Amino acid sequence: MNHINNENLKYQIKARIYMKDFGIGPGVAKIMELVKETENLSEVYRIMGLSSSKGWKMIKNSEEDLGISLIKSTIGGSGGGKSSLTPEGEQLLQSYQNFTKEIEIECEKLFHKHFQGY
Amino acid sequence: MNHINNENLKYQIKARIYMKDFGIGPGVAKIMELVKETENLSEVYRIMGLSSSKGWKMIKNSEEDLGISLIKSTIGGSGGGKSSLTPEGEQLLQSYQNFTKEIEIECEKLFHKHFQGY
Repeated sequence: MNHINNENLKYQIKARIYMKDFGIGPGVAKIMELVKETENLSEVYRIMGLSSSKGWKMIKNSEEDLGISLIKSTIGGSGGGKSSLTPEGEQLLQSYQNFTKEIEIECEKLFHKHFQGY
Repeated sequence: MNHINNENLKYQIKARIYMKDFGIGPGVAKIMELVKETENLSEVYRIMGLSSSKGWKMIKNSEEDLGISLIKSTIGGSGGGKSSLTPEGEQLLQSYQNFTKEIEIECEKLFHKHFQGY
């Protein structure tokens, strides 16, 4: 019987919070984190390798699913528009980050428990 | 400020165990569970709505990534071939199921902790 080479084994956990379908997962959370950092949606899309139509759709799907607005943008001005999180978006991102951080701590233990025999 | 309607809020967790890329996630685990149940790969693909080329590729990618064989098939016979899990596949599926079951228990608690205020 072949055995899995345990030293190279990794795990990945993806968490999604939603009402009906989209909600917030790693992708939308990353967009929101980068919006806080850069205040510039075009820059966010560029960093993430997303087309602006794809990125915009992810945000809109998420907002529609959760029934709140996540990101607000001001248009124009000398340096172009600025984007930021709405208060609800800020709160949701914070909860999502806390949730996933604690999941990771638990999963680290569980991974070793169930896969250290490999 | 709009609030999320907490009663309709749900979460979903996906766990993947891998070496470099594919490994085993919910899709391959489901294929393996159904192979145990039906012993018939064509039936498994039909239930999951997968084309046989897509399903086969998922299994092959997983086997290649983990370096073990997961499913074995006998060809022909009066009732067509039969498929079953290899011993390594059986062991991996068991570990994955135990891992994800315990993750779900932890996540249930963490979800309520972080999202009950909504």
